[in-house]
Amino acid sequence: MSHSLIDQLTEAFRCLPGIGTKSAQRMVWHLLERDRQGGTKLANTMIEAMQKIDHCRQCHNFSEEETCAICSSASRDDALLCVVESPADVLAIEHSGSFRGKYFVTMGNLSPIDGIGPEEIGAEALLIRSSQQVDEVILAMSSTVEGEATAHYLGELLKARNVVVTRIAHGIPIGGELEFVDGGTLTHALQGRKAI
Amino acid sequence: MSHSLIDQLTEAFRCLPGIGTKSAQRMVWHLLERDRQGGTKLANTMIEAMQKIDHCRQCHNFSEEETCAICSSASRDDALLCVVESPADVLAIEHSGSFRGKYFVTMGNLSPIDGIGPEEIGAEALLIRSSQQVDEVILAMSSTVEGEATAHYLGELLKARNVVVTRIAHGIPIGGELEFVDGGTLTHALQGRKAI
Repeated sequence: MSHSLIDQLTEAFRCLPGIGTKSAQRMVWHLLERDRQGGTKLANTMIEAMQKIDHCRQCHNFSEEETCAICSSASRDDALLCVVESPADVLAIEHSGSFRGKYFVTMGNLSPIDGIGPEEIGAEALLIRSSQQVDEVILAMSSTVEGEATAHYLGELLKARNVVVTRIAHGIPIGGELEFVDGGTLTHALQGRKAI
Repeated sequence: MSHSLIDQLTEAFRCLPGIGTKSAQRMVWHLLERDRQGGTKLANTMIEAMQKIDHCRQCHNFSEEETCAICSSASRDDALLCVVESPADVLAIEHSGSFRGKYFVTMGNLSPIDGIGPEEIGAEALLIRSSQQVDEVILAMSSTVEGEATAHYLGELLKARNVVVTRIAHGIPIGGELEFVDGGTLTHALQGRKAI
């Protein structure tokens, strides 16, 4: 049984994140027994996606067009640029419905140890993008060590070119109870207090 | 973005068991960013598998050949037939290395409410198979309500044809501590006691 097609398919499924041998087997058996049509459709869509989807020339998010739907939308504010780490962040902000500007996706944070430097996160492309009709660049990286380092680096770079740069607010999450919020967040929440 | 190729691929991934929208998105982004080659290979293997893999004519397990590797093996005992519920059970018994006979896979248990009757589990095929050089049929269904019902049904059917039928033993799992074993298992373990 060692090199059968079933084993090959089980092995191939392990390229997916979070899928080990047991889950892969379960997927193979499920598709074979209950959903061959779904499996074939998934496979065909996957082949098409792997070939056709590239990065949007403007915002670097994934897109099957040269310029993605958000970047080419005429109804969005070109003067407001939100810099995020990943396509998931674009989706999260879009779902919140609170932003009508455009995006720039760095596709990761600076991580010199992994060989991810300014070029890999598209720093130069962001500078060029920011020099075109942009009034404000919002740095919306996560509040992790890597996210803060990347935000700091890009912030300095942009300020040197006289671009207005802001960072999204840190504080108590809505619905969060004060007593359960960690010290770092409380410190930021107090420092970032606003007059009411 | 609503009908983009990315959305179509995310949707297609949801045919896999246990995969919701969030996991599907993570898979899509992972493949696009880090493993397009793996994704293409997975897709091609999946298409080949969906086309080529059918049920083994003899044991009903999945196989790309008409007769699977176990059924066509000359070094295995044809006279001993082990009936299991699923391909996963064949794999589990094979890994234990404790069985050198052949298998019959019912691909599920009787479940009248879901329309799974004797025909769906291959009862007739099992009877025919058992009439060929088989000395003993071991019923190795799980010890669930459905498994017991199926084992009972097939046992009666086979005994009526004068086939020797056995059921795998139920009792304390190896390494299991008595005080933590459930009552049903203890009852079976006591009833199934053996002289030493």
